This record gives sequence, C-alpha cells and structure tokens, in this order.
Amino acid sequence: MEYPPILLASGSPRRRFLLKDAGFEVQFITPNIDERYPDSLSSNEIPLYLAKKKNLAVTSEKLIVSADTIVCLENEILNKPSDDNEAFEMLSKLSGKTHSVFTGVYIRQSEKHVGFVEESKVFFKKLNSDFIKAYIEKCNPYDKAGAYGIQDMMGYFGIYRIEGCYYNVMGFPLSKFYDKLNDFLQV
Amino acid sequence: MEYPPILLASGSPRRRFLLKDAGFEVQFITPNIDERYPDSLSSNEIPLYLAKKKNLAVTSEKLIVSADTIVCLENEILNKPSDDNEAFEMLSKLSGKTHSVFTGVYIRQSEKHVGFVEESKVFFKKLNSDFIKAYIEKCNPYDKAGAYGIQDMMGYFGIYRIEGCYYNVMGFPLSKFYDKLNDFLQV
Repeated sequence: MEYPPILLASGSPRRRFLLKDAGFEVQFITPNIDERYPDSLSSNEIPLYLAKKKNLAVTSEKLIVSADTIVCLENEILNKPSDDNEAFEMLSKLSGKTHSVFTGVYIRQSEKHVGFVEESKVFFKKLNSDFIKAYIEKCNPYDKAGAYGIQDMMGYFGIYRIEGCYYNVMGFPLSKFYDKLNDFLQV
Repeated sequence: MEYPPILLASGSPRRRFLLKDAGFEVQFITPNIDERYPDSLSSNEIPLYLAKKKNLAVTSEKLIVSADTIVCLENEILNKPSDDNEAFEMLSKLSGKTHSVFTGVYIRQSEKHVGFVEESKVFFKKLNSDFIKAYIEKCNPYDKAGAYGIQDMMGYFGIYRIEGCYYNVMGFPLSKFYDKLNDFLQV
C-alpha cells in the first residue's frame, strides 16, 4: 500500500525516528497543549485523551498522527522527571517491580478519526542506588516518562523482560499502528 | 565496576553493535567452526553447545565471549535461509504463530568459564504473501536465524508481542549477560 505523508504531532525524538525508520514520509510539529487531564480518567484512558488533545490542536488537511505515553506503577502515574532527585525517586520505585507502559495514538484526517491504546509490561531488576545514580548521570533521562529508556542502558542492563510491543515502550506502538492505519485508509 | 576488554567470538554485526553500544570495550574475531551438533540435544541445549564450540575455538588470554541464536517453532529449528525461497518458506511457517528464540552465551577466561541460555517468545501476526515477499526484497534477511530481524520491518510491523528480553531476540541477551558477567568477574 502507498501511504500518504504523515504530519506527526509530537515532540518526541524517538517517535520521529521510529516512523521515519519504518519508511513513512513524515513531517513534524510540536503541539503546545495543556497536558493536564480530568482526575476521572483511568490510567489507560489518559494517554488517549492527551494524544487526541495534541491531535486536535493541529490544523491541517494532512494525515495527522499524535501519541502520548505514560508509565504506570501500581496505579501511580510516573511522568517525566524534573531533576536528578525526581529521576532517582522514580527509578527507585520501579526497581524490582513490574509496571505498565500505555501509549495512546490518535489518527485523523479531515472529519475522519480513530484512536487506540497499547499496553506493554516492563520487568525491572532490583537495582542498587549506585547503578541508578550512574544511569541518571550517563543517560540524562529527563525527557522520558518514568525516567528511563528501553533503548538505552536501562533497557540493556536493568530490564530483564517485557511482555508486549517493544516499540510501544519506546514511545510508539508501530505494529498496532500499522494495522489501524491500514484500516483507516481503506474504510 | 570496571570491565576488562571483551574478545567477542562472533561474526554477527548485531552482537558487535550491542556490546559496543552497551559500553564494553570489544575486539572481534569470527571463529570458523563446524556448526553441526549432536541430534540428541534439545532446542535449548543447541545454542549453548554451539556458543561453547565457538568460544573454545579461540586461543587467547583475554575474556572471550561467544553466542549462538536459534529460532524454534514447534520443535522445528529454523536456521539462516540460504535463498529467497527458503526465507519465504520460513516466514510463512512463522506467520500467525508464536515461536521461541534461544541464545546461548559462553564466557571464558583461562580456566574459568560459564555458560547460560536465554529464551524469549515472539508472536507473529498472520502475514500475507505480498507482505512477506516485500519484506524479503527490502530487508534481505539471509544472515538471520528464522529469516527476520526484530529490529527491522518485521519487528516494526509483523510482530505484535514479545515475552522476554528484546535484545535476546536481536541476538544477544545483554541483561542476563550483565548479571552473569558480574558474577564471573567477582567469584
């Protein structure tokens, strides 16, 4: 199938990389939205709500794709850490436990639109504080929900198992997106 | 911990990339071994047997690390495809099914040695033959067991789930290797 160019409404360099590397023609825009959400939303509803908000903030006739990823540990949502201390606190919480990564994706062209959510589970080893400190110093995970990247030293050494889509943990569930996009363009 | 330089006894460019990207100082050697194995071995024993064989084929005082990966579908072992037809046949078999990827790793320095095996499960979508043909033409998966890469278009679009270590599917289980190497160097 021939795919139309995608206008990706996301500032994430991982999403930009993945969609381009997967062969899509992609243009980028960083929507400026208020990232708050209603308290009534459950953890799997939040990323879809935010992805839709980002998508609707863009005015274009193009195929607009947006996404939002959250990390959820035992009903607590871990966002992007604001500094070293917060990154250390988040990683100490994730240590030795299993959490969920939810990415919401929203696809829209003119009046037509569809959204979906993908969940992956990520299993952290028990990490000692020296490992966590060295990781933060080396990888500066400030632009990542949960303060880690599956594609960096944490994914290499600190994570022993995932259940689900790897690219979802990286920030964009390419595999499910591919199916949903094919449906979207054919319907 | 400071790690000694690793002599990686493997020709795989993925393994070379992963170990270097993970921060190890790595030198490479491609051992020339007979890759046959006894029929009596079970599928999880084969990659360890071959990894050990590769390792022992190298003479060096350095820390020698070797690995071997096999793809196992319902007790059938899928090796590297020799041509387009064989790649097509393998991917048609994997389509719509779940298979296991086993990597055996062998670590040795002088008299001291240890080996381990890691298993990951990989879930393929039902793929149509046009998709498989286009994939083979684009990605030339001839140097990969099972005729696919988790880090290329097949991983992006054809695989919807994994259970286990992603880097194991790519050819080297970095996370378990890290723990085993730390044990190896401390004992």
